[in-house]
Amino acid sequence: MSFFSHHPSRSPRIWTDILLRWQGSVIPAIASRVLVCMAFSLGVTLVDGWGYKFSIPIQESIVPSIVLGLLLVFRTNTAYERFWEGRKAWGTMVNTIRNLSRIIWVSVAEPSPQAHQDKIKILHLLVAFAVATKLHLRSQPLNEEIWALLPESGYRKLEDLNNPPLEIAFWISNYLQREYDQNNINAYQLTAMLRLVDTMVDVLGSCERILKTPIPLAYAIHLRQLIFLYCFITPFQIVNTLHWATAFVVGIIAFTVFGIEEIGVEIENPFGHDANDLPLDQICQTMQANLEDLIQLPPWHQISHGD
Amino acid sequence: MSFFSHHPSRSPRIWTDILLRWQGSVIPAIASRVLVCMAFSLGVTLVDGWGYKFSIPIQESIVPSIVLGLLLVFRTNTAYERFWEGRKAWGTMVNTIRNLSRIIWVSVAEPSPQAHQDKIKILHLLVAFAVATKLHLRSQPLNEEIWALLPESGYRKLEDLNNPPLEIAFWISNYLQREYDQNNINAYQLTAMLRLVDTMVDVLGSCERILKTPIPLAYAIHLRQLIFLYCFITPFQIVNTLHWATAFVVGIIAFTVFGIEEIGVEIENPFGHDANDLPLDQICQTMQANLEDLIQLPPWHQISHGD
Amino acid sequence: MSFFSHHPSRSPRIWTDILLRWQGSVIPAIASRVLVCMAFSLGVTLVDGWGYKFSIPIQESIVPSIVLGLLLVFRTNTAYERFWEGRKAWGTMVNTIRNLSRIIWVSVAEPSPQAHQDKIKILHLLVAFAVATKLHLRSQPLNEEIWALLPESGYRKLEDLNNPPLEIAFWISNYLQREYDQNNINAYQLTAMLRLVDTMVDVLGSCERILKTPIPLAYAIHLRQLIFLYCFITPFQIVNTLHWATAFVVGIIAFTVFGIEEIGVEIENPFGHDANDLPLDQICQTMQANLEDLIQLPPWHQISHGD
Amino acid sequence: MSFFSHHPSRSPRIWTDILLRWQGSVIPAIASRVLVCMAFSLGVTLVDGWGYKFSIPIQESIVPSIVLGLLLVFRTNTAYERFWEGRKAWGTMVNTIRNLSRIIWVSVAEPSPQAHQDKIKILHLLVAFAVATKLHLRSQPLNEEIWALLPESGYRKLEDLNNPPLEIAFWISNYLQREYDQNNINAYQLTAMLRLVDTMVDVLGSCERILKTPIPLAYAIHLRQLIFLYCFITPFQIVNTLHWATAFVVGIIAFTVFGIEEIGVEIENPFGHDANDLPLDQICQTMQANLEDLIQLPPWHQISHGD
Amino acid sequence: MSFFSHHPSRSPRIWTDILLRWQGSVIPAIASRVLVCMAFSLGVTLVDGWGYKFSIPIQESIVPSIVLGLLLVFRTNTAYERFWEGRKAWGTMVNTIRNLSRIIWVSVAEPSPQAHQDKIKILHLLVAFAVATKLHLRSQPLNEEIWALLPESGYRKLEDLNNPPLEIAFWISNYLQREYDQNNINAYQLTAMLRLVDTMVDVLGSCERILKTPIPLAYAIHLRQLIFLYCFITPFQIVNTLHWATAFVVGIIAFTVFGIEEIGVEIENPFGHDANDLPLDQICQTMQANLEDLIQLPPWHQISHGD
Repeated sequence: MSFFSHHPSRSPRIWTDILLRWQGSVIPAIASRVLVCMAFSLGVTLVDGWGYKFSIPIQESIVPSIVLGLLLVFRTNTAYERFWEGRKAWGTMVNTIRNLSRIIWVSVAEPSPQAHQDKIKILHLLVAFAVATKLHLRSQPLNEEIWALLPESGYRKLEDLNNPPLEIAFWISNYLQREYDQNNINAYQLTAMLRLVDTMVDVLGSCERILKTPIPLAYAIHLRQLIFLYCFITPFQIVNTLHWATAFVVGIIAFTVFGIEEIGVEIENPFGHDANDLPLDQICQTMQANLEDLIQLPPWHQISHGD
Repeated sequence: MSFFSHHPSRSPRIWTDILLRWQGSVIPAIASRVLVCMAFSLGVTLVDGWGYKFSIPIQESIVPSIVLGLLLVFRTNTAYERFWEGRKAWGTMVNTIRNLSRIIWVSVAEPSPQAHQDKIKILHLLVAFAVATKLHLRSQPLNEEIWALLPESGYRKLEDLNNPPLEIAFWISNYLQREYDQNNINAYQLTAMLRLVDTMVDVLGSCERILKTPIPLAYAIHLRQLIFLYCFITPFQIVNTLHWATAFVVGIIAFTVFGIEEIGVEIENPFGHDANDLPLDQICQTMQANLEDLIQLPPWHQISHGD
Repeated sequence: MSFFSHHPSRSPRIWTDILLRWQGSVIPAIASRVLVCMAFSLGVTLVDGWGYKFSIPIQESIVPSIVLGLLLVFRTNTAYERFWEGRKAWGTMVNTIRNLSRIIWVSVAEPSPQAHQDKIKILHLLVAFAVATKLHLRSQPLNEEIWALLPESGYRKLEDLNNPPLEIAFWISNYLQREYDQNNINAYQLTAMLRLVDTMVDVLGSCERILKTPIPLAYAIHLRQLIFLYCFITPFQIVNTLHWATAFVVGIIAFTVFGIEEIGVEIENPFGHDANDLPLDQICQTMQANLEDLIQLPPWHQISHGD
Repeated sequence: MSFFSHHPSRSPRIWTDILLRWQGSVIPAIASRVLVCMAFSLGVTLVDGWGYKFSIPIQESIVPSIVLGLLLVFRTNTAYERFWEGRKAWGTMVNTIRNLSRIIWVSVAEPSPQAHQDKIKILHLLVAFAVATKLHLRSQPLNEEIWALLPESGYRKLEDLNNPPLEIAFWISNYLQREYDQNNINAYQLTAMLRLVDTMVDVLGSCERILKTPIPLAYAIHLRQLIFLYCFITPFQIVNTLHWATAFVVGIIAFTVFGIEEIGVEIENPFGHDANDLPLDQICQTMQANLEDLIQLPPWHQISHGD
Repeated sequence: MSFFSHHPSRSPRIWTDILLRWQGSVIPAIASRVLVCMAFSLGVTLVDGWGYKFSIPIQESIVPSIVLGLLLVFRTNTAYERFWEGRKAWGTMVNTIRNLSRIIWVSVAEPSPQAHQDKIKILHLLVAFAVATKLHLRSQPLNEEIWALLPESGYRKLEDLNNPPLEIAFWISNYLQREYDQNNINAYQLTAMLRLVDTMVDVLGSCERILKTPIPLAYAIHLRQLIFLYCFITPFQIVNTLHWATAFVVGIIAFTVFGIEEIGVEIENPFGHDANDLPLDQICQTMQANLEDLIQLPPWHQISHGD
């Protein structure tokens, strides 16, 4: 057990495991920028050593430092809020599909065996909505995940359209309205179910919003300009005092600020395939598994009066 | 590939692309103010050089610096929250119009071919609501975008009124009530649909609220006065130490604080035409495209029993 | 055009307009406190000059400074959140009255011309609710604004009661229930409309809550004591270095901290008549105007089949 | 009028009134701790004066200072959020009881004079719910406030149970269901009214949650340990420079940090009897008054057709 | 009474009780890391004493310090928000089970004594949902707590499935639908009750979301790397000035920053068994107790007409 481990009764993870992880860290993304800053600092030190003294002993002014520090953190917070909002949207997706599938399974009357098969098809269509949303958010074409959940003609139709999840929502509404027209559900149940379909479309809309609305451009530009100014002015401030250690210190500073900015960029769009993105594939598989469990579950009156 | 690029597997954007962008940056807006501050600093340096020494070696006091720094960032955060709230309102608009159009398309019975045409007119009226809201928020008169979505007499009527989207909402409610009176929808469906119309009007109200309620005046005034004092006192503090570099350093400081304040002003009202505003035109076009897809989609029972 | 103007394509406002505004600024409110601090500093400088040296060269300790700085900003943020919550409440009021008036206008059947007149009376009663809420929040008696919107006997009755808007809400509910009893609306519509009345009463309650619950007393006291200590200890810290400039520097510091605290006090209750309060009069007039537009609007089937 | 008064047109309160208040301030709570710190500093100064020099001229390190400063403020913010959430919960209580009493009064048919009396009893039961919640949150036994609002047998029954408000909610639901069974309200009205009862129970649950879930223990412990370390290390840092002024300066620092921590403790549970707690007694009395007004109000059709 | 006690009329807790608590504190978890840092500092001091001078008198640069400080606090805030969101989710669970059990108890007609027994079984099933959720969140197998609340065949069935609470929700919906089919509740009541079941499943989903989505990896890695760099660079900065006190000062700094990071880790997942976790066992017992009270309570008309 490492010196850096957590207290055993609390968490099995080792503190240094996270510390030394490469996969998921921002180091690959920022390495080149940090090295450029260090090279520049080395250049400054050399020129300073040749006698062209850069004697600008400016103390860091507090207000610009606070502004830059807070902006960097605000950048991360904002990106994290999007990440978390995206996660909440998918949480709502999971809940809604669980609720809608349960209520369809329980409440839609089955006047014929065919109706039972139709219900199973619709439950699969609910999962297809989630999968189609995932692919839509990743700008991927339809694939075999969707193929397995849809009739072939539906699959072909979807290939031609801009927004497949939206069309799937139309079909679900369509099915529910038809069941109502055939008196398999009553009007209140129809309304309640359609409201759940609305919620699914709301989730789709929220995710599209997060995906398509990055942080305002003026903000991103100003922040990068300030970071740039900060990293390239710092060597002139410290070369007098630190001489050959300048590049090393500038490297640490650049690592801090570029790293924090990069985290913002990484987690701002949480719907991709990265180590830092949401596990959408796994979420979709859990939905599918929940559904299979639901389909094979005996009803309550069997359980209740069987003991 | 630039030294400053992201790690290729993550993002194709080049770090310096954003850094060097002019379009959308706040530099044009703040350039004159920064130059005035630099000129003033140069003046201070000259007078100081003539022998009228400004020896006020005040260290920056921490509390006022923290207050100014935090206020500047709070200003941006608040403006960003409005930006994001405006974006959410339009996201809700998109979702609601998708949901309402789908439910009208699915649920309203069509006793005659005329009724089918009426439904298509109403779907266009939904898009007209969004477009009219956009124009209303931008204080623009009605234009051909609206003309294409409305009967002529409706267009003429709207031209005379204060709040066109509100009148369009009235017509949508009107249509729905009439369909109910003619037994084409039941009472529960009517209630659910009217609630969606209410949501559309809520969105209109939220956007008007964001547009018409800027940050409290006392706040904006005090912040500007503090920025002004800060930028014009700084040269006196640093001229002793920095001499001819004073103007350069004051320029960087002024760039930081004016820039951050300007971002707040830019994104506070997100409904305009700027690079930093919401892409309302594109959002409206997407709605229209979603609608065209909806109108031509075959119903589920065709899909379901066709394979 | 001033050097300090915005870039013309963005905003027509001049930067210095806000900077130099007197109306709405906190300067009148804090001037006396700032002057007392400056006078005290001058006294300290004089006594120091007579030889009683105050040699307490304490550097500002960082933790108390951070605490004071953050508390000041937290104070403003909290006050701003109330301001914004009050604004949202009134936004909800506007939306709800728009929705309820539209739905009453569209859905309540009119078996007789008298019923049409009754509907118009009720629409005016909705505006009367908003106006009565405004007066109630400002602790003003009923006035001619209300008089114009109510029957005389209703006006007389309201004068005797504690909470006029609450009684108006009762009458609206009363009217709706009666229309339901006379089969002019169905049960679902009644429920939906009554829910909107509930929302109006919720808004009233939210505004009362903001008005009657200031920031906790312990908080306000501690903050004022810290500000007081800070402003009256500062001269002793800086008189050694700054001599006759002490009063000037203390003045700027006092202006910063008293100003920011005063903003909190100003915007904490946003329902008054100040330059920094919400434009409630204007909001009420807009509601009234929306209503007049609604009453004269032709129904959709005329528009739709007229072209 | 004091020099420290607000500008007269804005607020009648005098600035120094708040500054000098004892009642509601945290001074009594923290005085002993501040004095202990000052005594300790005095001890350090004495020992330092005897020749055992404590020459640890550590500058405060910035990161721990920022962490402590921000944690102190975070502590207060969190406590304030609970305070405000508790206030919102009671605001919802007020709104819900107003809405439910109004709708019962308006909608429940009165086939007999007895039914009218039953309605009045139920309105009192609504207020009893609020009062019982207040007593429950304060861990007080039932008292004459409740006695006045309930039949005697109900009062006796409640005395034996764990959670009186919950039982009152049961009775309200019970009454409503019975009225529905007797056709005095329809099914939609029943559902809407029961939802309001649900909201009342939600409020009860929210208040219990705020009361029973203090800030996580690890957090409270770590914060106190950091405050303790900070206050007892500071004298060693400053005794070299300040000598006999050490105790005075440490006193001010201790006053700042203990005060801010104490505010968090004071307002974290806002349901008590302190000057800093919510005015629950007054809120309950306002509810009662609103109810009495409601009971004696003439219906709208009398008002409307009487003029 | 201790010197450090609160003012007696406010709170009975002693200030130092919390200060000195071991149980629930983060000290056991971080002790080894703090000791490693201190040992390293001692090593640096020794080598420095042997003549290999580490003269790197870098002042801490403000921007990286602000970034590290704010990130540490942001880490705690985020973790606290999850803690509080988890608490809110369980609060909603309590409220919903109270509301659903009350409404079932009041509204479901009992045509036979068997139906009464079935209702009691369902009320127990509601508690079983909460208990199963607790066990599911703790990754524990079903146990005797569940056994006591379910028929044996139901218990056996649950043992085989992935997500027991989800299956319990199915059974509750199943029961309600069956009661509706047998005309023991009407359609509106069914819809309202099923919506409460949906809320219970939403709570389950929220808790799963909090449990399975830790803070983004890039964030956790970068923060640990910065902490590491900070703690291992600090000795080189201060050894020149502090000599043998270096290890002591580094220890305090390490205690501060490791402690605050550890609190984030501890409270991020609030569903465990620790002193810092939510009291889920107690919450479940309270639910059960509320239920037993409900079952034995006499109806209102007995209370109302008995006095």
